Amino acid sequence: MSLMLQEITEQPVVLERTIQAEREKLAKLGTFLRNKDIDLIVLAARGSSDNACQFGRYLLEVTTGIPVSLSAPSVFTLYKAKPNLKRALVVGVSQSGEGVDINNVLETAKESGAYTLGITNEADSSMAKIADETLLIHAGREKSVAATKTYTGQMLHFYLLAAQLADEKIAFEKIPHFAAQVLQLKSKVEELVERYVFMENCVVVGRGMNYGNSYELALKLMETCYVVAERFSSADFFHGPLAIVERRFPVLMFAPTGVTRQSNLDLLKRLQELHADSLAITNDEEIAKLSSRTIEMPKDVDEFLSPIPFIIPAQLFAALLSKAKGIDADAPRSLSKVTKTL
Amino acid sequence: MSLMLQEITEQPVVLERTIQAEREKLAKLGTFLRNKDIDLIVLAARGSSDNACQFGRYLLEVTTGIPVSLSAPSVFTLYKAKPNLKRALVVGVSQSGEGVDINNVLETAKESGAYTLGITNEADSSMAKIADETLLIHAGREKSVAATKTYTGQMLHFYLLAAQLADEKIAFEKIPHFAAQVLQLKSKVEELVERYVFMENCVVVGRGMNYGNSYELALKLMETCYVVAERFSSADFFHGPLAIVERRFPVLMFAPTGVTRQSNLDLLKRLQELHADSLAITNDEEIAKLSSRTIEMPKDVDEFLSPIPFIIPAQLFAALLSKAKGIDADAPRSLSKVTKTL
Repeated sequence: MSLMLQEITEQPVVLERTIQAEREKLAKLGTFLRNKDIDLIVLAARGSSDNACQFGRYLLEVTTGIPVSLSAPSVFTLYKAKPNLKRALVVGVSQSGEGVDINNVLETAKESGAYTLGITNEADSSMAKIADETLLIHAGREKSVAATKTYTGQMLHFYLLAAQLADEKIAFEKIPHFAAQVLQLKSKVEELVERYVFMENCVVVGRGMNYGNSYELALKLMETCYVVAERFSSADFFHGPLAIVERRFPVLMFAPTGVTRQSNLDLLKRLQELHADSLAITNDEEIAKLSSRTIEMPKDVDEFLSPIPFIIPAQLFAALLSKAKGIDADAPRSLSKVTKTL
Repeated sequence: MSLMLQEITEQPVVLERTIQAEREKLAKLGTFLRNKDIDLIVLAARGSSDNACQFGRYLLEVTTGIPVSLSAPSVFTLYKAKPNLKRALVVGVSQSGEGVDINNVLETAKESGAYTLGITNEADSSMAKIADETLLIHAGREKSVAATKTYTGQMLHFYLLAAQLADEKIAFEKIPHFAAQVLQLKSKVEELVERYVFMENCVVVGRGMNYGNSYELALKLMETCYVVAERFSSADFFHGPLAIVERRFPVLMFAPTGVTRQSNLDLLKRLQELHADSLAITNDEEIAKLSSRTIEMPKDVDEFLSPIPFIIPAQLFAALLSKAKGIDADAPRSLSKVTKTL
């Protein structure tokens, strides 16, 4: 079994352990932040961590009513700008905690008066030293180049943070159970990937809470399967990119029940007219009916809690497709684990 | 000549006309905004207009020091959230002014106390009626499905707005002249596209001020050439996507002199090791030397002013490649001009 597959299966345990270990720190942080006059949340990351932030952006903005901005690190690092962040909470997210540019964003933000938070898997990292407070993912060292357990760990921390800042309750305690449940799809996904062994291009679609997942699955497919994988929201897909879809062009889709359902249905109908090939990760019957293939998800996962359980079969898909294509998922060509961009 | 090509050549005139026609309105708006306590700018758009916003984000954040957020329209439309935007300037950008979701963002933002601004090519559009103030692109009706003259018109408006809010002077008056100058590259680009007639995939790279352009060229290649075109910042490209690059894989790059130069050089060196194929739109000698092919840009265009002159040969590249591939750029399959997503 590849390291990647092994780490995928660790996720229910990692998620539960993280909830337990960080619970108390989060409660204190929540009290502190609620008393501060935060009027902007800025999220800064690259790679998979940035995809987790795409999710965090929707979750935090929708549940807290505080505007959220996804940082453009170059504004700080290359252009040396110092935006006014006096009333901002700036969150840096990095698996290793050693992303030089993200740490640079945190340092500059701190100088500009922001309260800074790090989300990382490494307690002794530079990020943990720089940030005012650090939320730790308790994943153990991530050995696979392709991030999996740290990605869902980062997403979990956005739930924990949102739970502190939101008015309504968020039932994040259910997530580890859902994660364990969907791991049982492994043998089904293993059969399914055979159909995609010769796939060279595809588009991954997701919207709202699952928009970040579309970026993440696309990234996994690029890293571990060398598939040229585009990623779009089902809304943006109609603005131009639809033109690349021809007969049998594969479109992979995160399609839970909930508010994004109608737009995913509309897209699937259009894809059917174009004779495209669709694979839906879904717990909606009508979406399943309209798709060429389906990964069936548990019915009781509601849209707000869907992003972590829905990415897991997608991670399995990438890891198992990599194997079926004869690629070593743990040693993607041209890549290394820690990227220190500036 | 296709409508698209015709509209590309209109750009110097459109840009100059827009500067002259909107100058006075902008001056008044500037005085008004400088007196308001704006502490956040939110940009909302889809498709090409969203790519213009990607540029606007860097320009405004770097030059004004006000944090900028690219809106996720679904937060407003699907999740019905009402973020607190009391001290925000919210800018909706839409060629037609009829993007239902973007207009919805403007309406909700207005209710939340934001000052709203529309940037559109249509004076009688719904957007112009909703927004507190409207900045008009004076492009004449855009008939081509693929936006070109309205894209650069939108970018120009970000310069005009930044010039009002920034401390330092921005020499936007030079842009129409640069635009006219680079149109003369047409015959060179026409020769060049022959080499790419069988290109089916590619990656477009840009960073900082030219990050939005990488999205825009990729979109043009998808719409008018049916090329599966990925888009990345040269920083993010090292986080995983590099794995899809194999011998002769085409990477198109916006690479002006300036602060992004070093990271583009680093990427080009890595691409050379991988025997990839690179096409640089550049006015830097070393970058030109490292690239498989080059579109040579005028030396006197500095990075801050590069995005409009640099996208024009890229638009020509897409329009002429479309023709060379035997596609009708004015009638991309599956698309219509106005997209009314919700």
